[in-house]
This record gives sequence, structure tokens and C-alpha cells, in this order.
Amino acid sequence: MSRLHVTYSISAAAADVARRAEALAVEQSIEMPLDAVGERRIRDEIVGRVESIEPDGENRFRVVLGLATETTGGEVAQLISMIFGNCSLQDDVRLEDVAFPPELIAEFGGPRGGIAGLRALLGVVDRPLTSTALKPQGSSVETLATLCRTFALAEIDVIKDDHGIADQVAAPFAERAAACRRAVREAAEITGREVLYAPSLVGPPRALHERARIACGLGIKIVLVAPMVLGAATFHELVDSYPDLLFLAHPAFGGATRISPVWLFGRFFRLLGADAVIYPNYGGRFTYSPQVCRDIADAARGSWDALRPAFPVPAGGMTVDRVAEMTEFYGREVMLLIGGGLLSAGNALLERSREFVAKVAQR
Amino acid sequence: MSRLHVTYSISAAAADVARRAEALAVEQSIEMPLDAVGERRIRDEIVGRVESIEPDGENRFRVVLGLATETTGGEVAQLISMIFGNCSLQDDVRLEDVAFPPELIAEFGGPRGGIAGLRALLGVVDRPLTSTALKPQGSSVETLATLCRTFALAEIDVIKDDHGIADQVAAPFAERAAACRRAVREAAEITGREVLYAPSLVGPPRALHERARIACGLGIKIVLVAPMVLGAATFHELVDSYPDLLFLAHPAFGGATRISPVWLFGRFFRLLGADAVIYPNYGGRFTYSPQVCRDIADAARGSWDALRPAFPVPAGGMTVDRVAEMTEFYGREVMLLIGGGLLSAGNALLERSREFVAKVAQR
Repeated sequence: MSRLHVTYSISAAAADVARRAEALAVEQSIEMPLDAVGERRIRDEIVGRVESIEPDGENRFRVVLGLATETTGGEVAQLISMIFGNCSLQDDVRLEDVAFPPELIAEFGGPRGGIAGLRALLGVVDRPLTSTALKPQGSSVETLATLCRTFALAEIDVIKDDHGIADQVAAPFAERAAACRRAVREAAEITGREVLYAPSLVGPPRALHERARIACGLGIKIVLVAPMVLGAATFHELVDSYPDLLFLAHPAFGGATRISPVWLFGRFFRLLGADAVIYPNYGGRFTYSPQVCRDIADAARGSWDALRPAFPVPAGGMTVDRVAEMTEFYGREVMLLIGGGLLSAGNALLERSREFVAKVAQR
Repeated sequence: MSRLHVTYSISAAAADVARRAEALAVEQSIEMPLDAVGERRIRDEIVGRVESIEPDGENRFRVVLGLATETTGGEVAQLISMIFGNCSLQDDVRLEDVAFPPELIAEFGGPRGGIAGLRALLGVVDRPLTSTALKPQGSSVETLATLCRTFALAEIDVIKDDHGIADQVAAPFAERAAACRRAVREAAEITGREVLYAPSLVGPPRALHERARIACGLGIKIVLVAPMVLGAATFHELVDSYPDLLFLAHPAFGGATRISPVWLFGRFFRLLGADAVIYPNYGGRFTYSPQVCRDIADAARGSWDALRPAFPVPAGGMTVDRVAEMTEFYGREVMLLIGGGLLSAGNALLERSREFVAKVAQR
């Protein structure tokens, strides 16, 4: 019988942890007193099972539960409910990792393009990718498109909307996407090389589908989405629905979850189909350690069954000065994202963007 | 110019808090260096503003930011990104409360039926409501329908699927919803009073819409949803799309958010249209204090602009023995949810369910 193996970190006294783990196994499966379960099949096959308990520091344990794959119904939303629905409400539990059975890995499918797909689209084989963001929100379509053109002239590989840009009055989605797409094409006539513009998709499901269709109609090849803002199941439905799009995942609303960021951003976003995964880099405005950042990167791009690797995209307060350090740290399979660190150049934006591209090209 | 006033709790030294608050205001709006913003309108109208900073314990402050309503684009997903997208990734920040401008309150709209709507459907005016759950997942359609019939014979007001029940092989949605709806009708022929069956809606957006249409076609009047599992914007789209359905909101995946549960379950779920809001009661398997539970209840049902009040639904390890205590504590405008505490009666299920109903009727 197929089970997911879910690893939790539990804070408990040694004398209590076995009972706590059993209670968690019930909470995350049938959620009712075991002795009130009449059917043998349910006790044997549906009730969560404690697979192992290992000490992990003082009054802390790594507990692996076996949760029946059947309980997920093969759906992302229900999967979330089963692995961390109710116990998100219990402060002593943290989700660390999930080992998925092959049928769920095949069902969710991972990136359609991933690192190879993005490299193929861009024609870049032997260096890290570069990326930047169109900001600030509140700018007009014309301003954003002009900015996009400048970045495209500098040949930054992926130019994304800031995740704060949605469908506001200042720059409505359809108009903005068309103008920025045009800007990238016009720049390509000058440089001879077409880079990618990634509009930000955010909204309720129907609007997301409408905007994704608009993007496809414009020949756009990649979009920015924040899976935790949209709901992971909504994100996965988009991946499933638009085979011509690649997906750049943003970590917004994904920080305060008591879920390991290595698992959430590196593994789960990849499993659901993210081709590239943005996360807060060490040494910027966020607090992840270098080790956590390396682990996220390796989870996103490392070997995992038949799933394609996804690009790690460290970001958040990055500057051109740190390019050498970043490529040294992450190696070649990385997309470096510098947003504000380019924009602060003011009138020298094109030059600083070119400097960014040149520094990455040297690696 | 319209702004949301968002209250955060920030952990910082007194000497640093002003700078920290300014950085947060930038993070949650334009997310780029202020001095690189050329347009005056953006500096004046789009950049977040620190409205106040008040001490709140040692090295802790309540900071109110004014965030431009324009930046939300009037959409739920983007609203989430603006109030807690990036700063969810910064450990020193907790979201406490949001004061919405009238246009967003009108746009999101709150419960369509709420307390009055549910009471009208049930024909119950002068007592708390009763509720229970069909469990365990893994049971067949027949087993769940039989259970549903028993609860309906006891005249429990709202009989919901366990939130662990989705569209799994053991009891697929369409078949289960039809059978449980039938069970409720058959019981009504005996008791003379029809109660409500609330199937669990969980899945990707297209499946949710398909299942909501099936529910409407069966004459079902209320559904169970977990807004944080589905994504709040997906939840709100459902509310918007099905005027004939009421919505019972489940807190799954909503615990580990560094968002005040009073705001999230009591206010935000209500704002988005929940007619009744389930939350972990004190003294059960979860750790909220009586004060937090009372505050959630009062946020859900208290006065708030023109929004209809929603039923608070305390749950989680409740028993029939606690009915008097609960109605004493919460008063009349409450729905009491007992799941496992009924099911543990085994063969005496009908009797214990009747006891539950009788105890509530006495209040």
C-alpha cells in the first residue's frame, strides 16, 4: 500500500514524544478517536502510521509519519491538508520534508522546461542566467515598457514584473504585457538577441486563466507567479493548463509557514512545476543562512526521480558587486536576480545593467 | 487618497524600530530604494507610509503602516501580497490587524447569508446551532450516508464532511454528495425537519467549480471549504460565483502564518464571505487561550460596517459534556461542532447525538 513519508520536527519531552507522534498520525489522517473506527481496512490502510522517531536536539525529535497516498486523492490542495492542514494549528510541529511515492511524483510532474527549457529558449548554455524586475508599482505602462526596453538592450535574460505589479489601474495587465513584450522585440531588432519578459500573474482563478491566455496570445513564454499567494493547487492548475508557458515562482506569503523553506521552495514548488524558483538570498534583506540557501538551490536543481531540474533564483537586496561571490557560491546552474540594485543607478541604468550582464558572462 | 491601515507587531530595539518600520513600508509597497523613485506621484501615493509606532512590551512595537488601496487592484491575492507577501519571509514581523477602506469592504462583501441566513435556512431563531462531521475518510459512500442519516435523525443542524474528505476513490465527491443529501431528505420525512449537509469542496479551481455546480444541482445549500488550503482568492471566487451556497470555513493550513488568528479567521474569512468560521476551541487538542477564542468569535459576529455577522464555530476535541460551558462562554450566537466526541459513542451514536441536540436546545 502506497504511503507518503512525511518528516516533522516535533518539540516534546522524551517521555511524551511517542504519544505525541501517534496523536499527530491520527490528526493528519482520520481525525477521530482510533477506537471509534470500526472498519479494519481504515485502521490498516488509512490511519497515519508512525514510521520512526529520532532525537534531534534537546526536547526535539524528527518524526516520520506514513500517510496513505489514497487520502490525497492525487490533488494538490488535499495533499496540503493531509501533510500540514490541522497540525499547522499546533505550535509544536514543523514540516521538514516529504518523500513522495512515484505515482504522485508522476501525477504532479515537476517543471515542463526547467533549467534545460529556459536555457533552450534563451540560447544560453554555458553561464548563469541574469534576471531583473520592472519596478516600482504605480508606474505607467509607458514607464515600465521603457524600463523593459533598457534591460532588454542590456540583454538581461529574464525581465520580470515586480510581484507587486498585478492588474492595478496604473498599468493594467493586458496593456502592460503587450507593451513590455513589444519592448523586448524592439530591443531584439537592435541587439540581435531576444530576451524573455515575464509578466506577473496574480488574481482569482478565472482572471488568472484569462491573463494566461492573453500572455500566450502575445507570444510570451514565461510568467511570474507566487504559489502561496494564489494557493498551490491554483498554481499547479496553471502549470497544467498552459504547455507553452514556463513558470517563475515567487516566495511571497511562503515565509511564515513553519515549513522548511528548503522543502517548500526547493522541492514542493519544483514538484508542482516551477521552472525557476526565487528565494531570499543570504546577505540581503532576509535572514536565510548560506547553508539554507545552498540547500534550497540543490533541492531545486539536484537529481530527483525523473523530474527536470529547476533554476534556483537567489534574490532580495542583491547588487552587481556580489555577482562574483554568487557565481562562486552557486556555480553555473543559477539565475541571478538583481532588482533595486540596478534601478538605483538612475540615469546610468543601461550601463549598470550591462555591467551585470558582463560580469555574469565572465563566469 | 485611500489607504489600508495595517498593524504589525515588530520585534526590534527601540533605537532601530523607526528605521525598521520605514524599511517595512518600502518592502510592502515599491520594494526598491526610495531614492531611485523618480516620480513624485509614486513617492506620495504608492509608497507605504509609517502612520504610528507604539511600544508593546520589551523590544516589541505595534507599527501601523498606511498602504495604498490602489496597490491591491481590488483583488484578494494581490491584497495578501501587499499586506504580508514579502514580510512573511522576515521573522521579526507579525500581522495583527487591517483596517480596510470602505471600497474594499464593499468589494469583498462579507457573508451573503451569515448568521441570519443560516438561521433562516434552518428555521432556528433562539438557540445556538449544532454541527458535526462525517468521518473517517476512507469510509465508503454508503457508510458516510448512513452516518449522515443518523445525525439527521438526531436533528443536528449542520452535518459536514470531515475536511479530510475530498474526492478520493473510497467516496468520490459526486456520489457522496448525492447520497448524503438523500440521507438528509429521508431523515426529514421521519423527523419533519430538514437539516443541512455540507460537503467538503477541495481541489484545483476547475474541479471546485465543477463540484460546486454539482452541489447546487443537488439542492445543497452549504459547503465546507478551507480558504488557506485553496488560496484565499480562490475561496472568494467561489463565494462570488454561487449565490445559492453558504460557506463554512475551515482553518486548515491557517495556523502557522505569523498572522493573528483573530484577524485571519474572525475578520478576513468573514470579509471574504464565510457564513460560519470553524476554529480550534480552547481546552481541546489545540492551544488557543479562552481570550483568543472569544476574540475570534467576536470578530466573526461583531459589528463591522455593513458586513453581515458570521457564526463562530469552536471545534477540535469538543464533547457533549462541555455544551453548557460552551454556551455559557459564547452565548447564543454560536454553532457548536462536535465530531469525534459523538462518533466515540459507537452503537449509541444516535442517542449521544440526541443528547447533544437536547443540551443545546435547553440553552
